[in-house]
Amino acid sequence: MSAEQVIGKINPPTVTPMRVGVLGFGGLGQAAARVLAPKREMVWVAAADQKGYAYDAQGLHPNACIETYQSEGSLGYLEPYGTLSSQSIQDLSERASVDGYFLALPNLPNTFMASVARQFIQSGWRGVLVDALKRTSAVEQLLELQDELQAAGITYMTGCGATPGLLTAAATLAAQSYAEVHSVKITFGVGIANWEAYRATIREDIAHLPGYDVARATAMSDADVEALLDKTNGILALENMEHADDVMLELAGICSRDRVTVGGVVDTRNPKKPLSTNVQVTGRTFEGKISTHTFTLGDETSMAANVCGPAFGYLKAGLALHRRGIYGLFTASEVMPQFVN
Amino acid sequence: MSAEQVIGKINPPTVTPMRVGVLGFGGLGQAAARVLAPKREMVWVAAADQKGYAYDAQGLHPNACIETYQSEGSLGYLEPYGTLSSQSIQDLSERASVDGYFLALPNLPNTFMASVARQFIQSGWRGVLVDALKRTSAVEQLLELQDELQAAGITYMTGCGATPGLLTAAATLAAQSYAEVHSVKITFGVGIANWEAYRATIREDIAHLPGYDVARATAMSDADVEALLDKTNGILALENMEHADDVMLELAGICSRDRVTVGGVVDTRNPKKPLSTNVQVTGRTFEGKISTHTFTLGDETSMAANVCGPAFGYLKAGLALHRRGIYGLFTASEVMPQFVN
Repeated sequence: MSAEQVIGKINPPTVTPMRVGVLGFGGLGQAAARVLAPKREMVWVAAADQKGYAYDAQGLHPNACIETYQSEGSLGYLEPYGTLSSQSIQDLSERASVDGYFLALPNLPNTFMASVARQFIQSGWRGVLVDALKRTSAVEQLLELQDELQAAGITYMTGCGATPGLLTAAATLAAQSYAEVHSVKITFGVGIANWEAYRATIREDIAHLPGYDVARATAMSDADVEALLDKTNGILALENMEHADDVMLELAGICSRDRVTVGGVVDTRNPKKPLSTNVQVTGRTFEGKISTHTFTLGDETSMAANVCGPAFGYLKAGLALHRRGIYGLFTASEVMPQFVN
Repeated sequence: MSAEQVIGKINPPTVTPMRVGVLGFGGLGQAAARVLAPKREMVWVAAADQKGYAYDAQGLHPNACIETYQSEGSLGYLEPYGTLSSQSIQDLSERASVDGYFLALPNLPNTFMASVARQFIQSGWRGVLVDALKRTSAVEQLLELQDELQAAGITYMTGCGATPGLLTAAATLAAQSYAEVHSVKITFGVGIANWEAYRATIREDIAHLPGYDVARATAMSDADVEALLDKTNGILALENMEHADDVMLELAGICSRDRVTVGGVVDTRNPKKPLSTNVQVTGRTFEGKISTHTFTLGDETSMAANVCGPAFGYLKAGLALHRRGIYGLFTASEVMPQFVN
């Protein structure tokens, strides 16, 4: 048997590209569109924002979509593929043929992603949903939908961005060397040149600061955010954040959630990362040795690359599960993402 | 729903521990027994060496087994659970109730692991097999058995040790940030106090040296090995090794095998690692940035911990696949290992 025949058996080539939608078209959604554009195994056919959606079964063009969104405020104005709608996600999911959606939505309020999941459950649509949720409490709301997702024929991959996501999965691997895991410490550095391209993400970060919560951060005007960042010289230093890495690692049986800590530094005025994002997993081996494995992301990789890449990797893995009839809720810690060519 | 109820739904507790066997009882097999001993989710019930096997459905005791093996030369002498046999693997697999086996066998000759897989296929046994094979050509032999394994109802996890295995999986994760992967560079450091505890492993390493091959390394007497190590001051420096990480990453669609390199330094006279084992994954992000993610193993973790831990993590994941009726061949790059408590 030739190498190609063997490859064909193990990892059959996708004859028909997977049809992918992106919900939310802020900084993350637009990055997702650019990540998808060169892929051969996936075609980006659908996107929605708050005021409308765009759908083309032949594939949407990122530049045209981003220009329309930025100049006119909604993908609904995209000629000839846009439709204005005040219930854009519902309308799109009913009309589009899509195998899986990446939910690039800000989870504001903190119940929003679960409400979108419920919409999909009620719609009768069957396929794969992937989110890049951050907060423990948000992932816990999805955990409660496990039975309903399964009954609806939806394979939902939660916490599948960078952290939680890539780094949670790396912690899951690192844990394998140990008889007992003592701590998982995630430290991220994010540098962005212009915070206004990530308005919702920055508000989610602000909500983690002492004295802030999601409601207060959501209510801030751009001028309020600007004023806060002026005081901190553009830096947001975050400690002991509520991050779903903890519940995901607990569910995977790796350690109790109190052994997982997440913190980081966001520089909103400099694309250079203030520190290298990493996860350190400390544990005891079967021989009684204490040691630490470290997974460190290259400084030149952006938040967008480290979130969108894994998200589509989990979407591809989720589609493989869905095709085998495996539905329900999965986290980044349970499934190996598949590389999308 | 309480957190425990949710955990129960996502990751149901194993009511009956998985019954695990270990084939091969050299350094790696003995370490595997010690790794398994404290686990609640797995019980070590069976083991085989070249001259016999031991089986106790209630669970074997590592100390008794290791003492018998070291003093009498075979587990077959273990009272009252041992049986001497010149076809120990075949006899054991026919008589024991085992959910999954870790093949802690030296792959000497280079066709040995595939021949063991064929024995299991012919025996009618159904379950999970896990190996920690190293060589590309050895994994390729197993790839050819994909259809037969599937038809036999066997879920076979290949290349599931440290490298290939843990580091290949880490490379698979790291690749997710990139649109294109340029290189995967694995560098390992191994320190062992006493090479005689790992006779077969050291011969496998010697076979990678310039001027040596598997046949020549296998034929070396202990005195020959000692003489070679005297010349190198106990150090084996290995470059461009034939390691199956390359074919596994190629099969996963991450990069062509020529972009994967494996090398390392083995110190046979010092338990301290001569360098920190790591994998570096370099690629281009969707924005056109070139960067490198790095996964580094803690120096205090031994080869035994980094091979056996992942192997049982993949065994647990393989059992979850097997229970869903998913059979055939899988590599460490396709499946997320599950932590074994």
